Amino acid sequence: MLYDVYFYGMNTREEMDDFILNGHLHYVPHVSIDCAIFGYHEQQLKLLLLKHKAIYGWCLPGGYIKRTETLVQAANRIVMERTGIGNLFLQQFKAFGDPDRAKTNSFDEEKLFEATGVRFGKNNWLIDQTISIGFYAITDFVKSVPEPDIMSDECAWFAIDEVPHLEFDHDEMVKEALHTMRVHLYHYPIGYNMLPEKFTLSEIHALYETLLGKKLDISNFPKKLIALGLLKKLNEKRSIGPHRSPHLYMFDKEKYDEALREGVVLS
Amino acid sequence: MLYDVYFYGMNTREEMDDFILNGHLHYVPHVSIDCAIFGYHEQQLKLLLLKHKAIYGWCLPGGYIKRTETLVQAANRIVMERTGIGNLFLQQFKAFGDPDRAKTNSFDEEKLFEATGVRFGKNNWLIDQTISIGFYAITDFVKSVPEPDIMSDECAWFAIDEVPHLEFDHDEMVKEALHTMRVHLYHYPIGYNMLPEKFTLSEIHALYETLLGKKLDISNFPKKLIALGLLKKLNEKRSIGPHRSPHLYMFDKEKYDEALREGVVLS
Repeated sequence: MLYDVYFYGMNTREEMDDFILNGHLHYVPHVSIDCAIFGYHEQQLKLLLLKHKAIYGWCLPGGYIKRTETLVQAANRIVMERTGIGNLFLQQFKAFGDPDRAKTNSFDEEKLFEATGVRFGKNNWLIDQTISIGFYAITDFVKSVPEPDIMSDECAWFAIDEVPHLEFDHDEMVKEALHTMRVHLYHYPIGYNMLPEKFTLSEIHALYETLLGKKLDISNFPKKLIALGLLKKLNEKRSIGPHRSPHLYMFDKEKYDEALREGVVLS
Repeated sequence: MLYDVYFYGMNTREEMDDFILNGHLHYVPHVSIDCAIFGYHEQQLKLLLLKHKAIYGWCLPGGYIKRTETLVQAANRIVMERTGIGNLFLQQFKAFGDPDRAKTNSFDEEKLFEATGVRFGKNNWLIDQTISIGFYAITDFVKSVPEPDIMSDECAWFAIDEVPHLEFDHDEMVKEALHTMRVHLYHYPIGYNMLPEKFTLSEIHALYETLLGKKLDISNFPKKLIALGLLKKLNEKRSIGPHRSPHLYMFDKEKYDEALREGVVLS
């Protein structure tokens, strides 16, 4: 049985061979990382998915952890290698280890052979039970244009309500990533790099509504951000129509970064 | 170098030998679980620590994951085997995988030999880099009396502000466990099995203050629990002194369990 086999980021046949034969010397066996990368732009929420050449369906970008890397370094490298997207704020949400988590995958050994020219030995380090650590991120999908690596057919943004059934246990991963991201919205500031530098209260309110996936009666999040000094009211307005020129706001980046480190209570 | 070697729950020399020689067939190598078990009782918060026979200092109870177990099953079994405490509500908080996370431990191979009569071969599955998945739990430390297993010298509750320096990266684990537990207080109900069946608003307010480690100006948590129907006011009072007989409350267990599954927004 093949569990959750990832191998990407390799550009030559030699690199591929070395990874398959000696990868356990450079990577921690039995542990992988999968990343749920959410994209926001103007009230739309999307998810980044990958189509690996040897797997029929779509899945989250993933890979292994180098023995010299911290988990977050590995997650950043994997996202960069798989998708071309760099510099994400990645946050762990959960590890997945059900013994049957990979049993339903449609991994195709023949397709793998076609794509790579390589066959696995029976005791290969890649063919064994794998526990995967889930990371999530939120970015602006307009600024983050994916470029799949040579082992992937496609890498694309999907609207959150049009995400297809995913391989392995990645459906559950996405559900858990969304849940944790939504809990975190109440405890960490969000919006930097996802809103224009100067924005209206409606715009940040819409960001929260979109990420939470529900209408909010009152605008507690922006109010709380202002009360905590994370959001500054500017002496500028934006003209959006007759009699409509709302005030503009921007983040206090220093306080924002501190709140990201320490956590706060919003809502 | 020895990384985070756990082996407990074994009662005979034969079991020990089999675990050391063949454990990789029954357990997932390279991955362990560590558990931060918090204990609450009447405004005191404690942490459960273990003293392994082959390690000088204290650490969190931990162990490996059987290849047939889910992560939460493994965590429950490990806590039961190590400490004799069963039936805990365990919640994942973070995986720890810095390459140097175990380099500072004071694991003593000679002490291990004394305690077990067994020596490791150089290629033994236990002697390699390990990524550990952290779980936390909260229980009533009066109802949860630890009984260490044969590989542990001691297993005891420590007041949270008197926790000694811990082995491996367990100091960081405790800090992260506390942080996640405190975030979760805003999103899941707590108190069942930690308060008397019928309790006053002051008692549940004190529970929140103790777990959060700070004074709360106003009693938002109980108010929100009442508003969400999780807490029911009883037609009973407790007499605690002249002119002082506060109303008693109890949890609506059905709504409580639903809120544990689905999450809520408290505060």
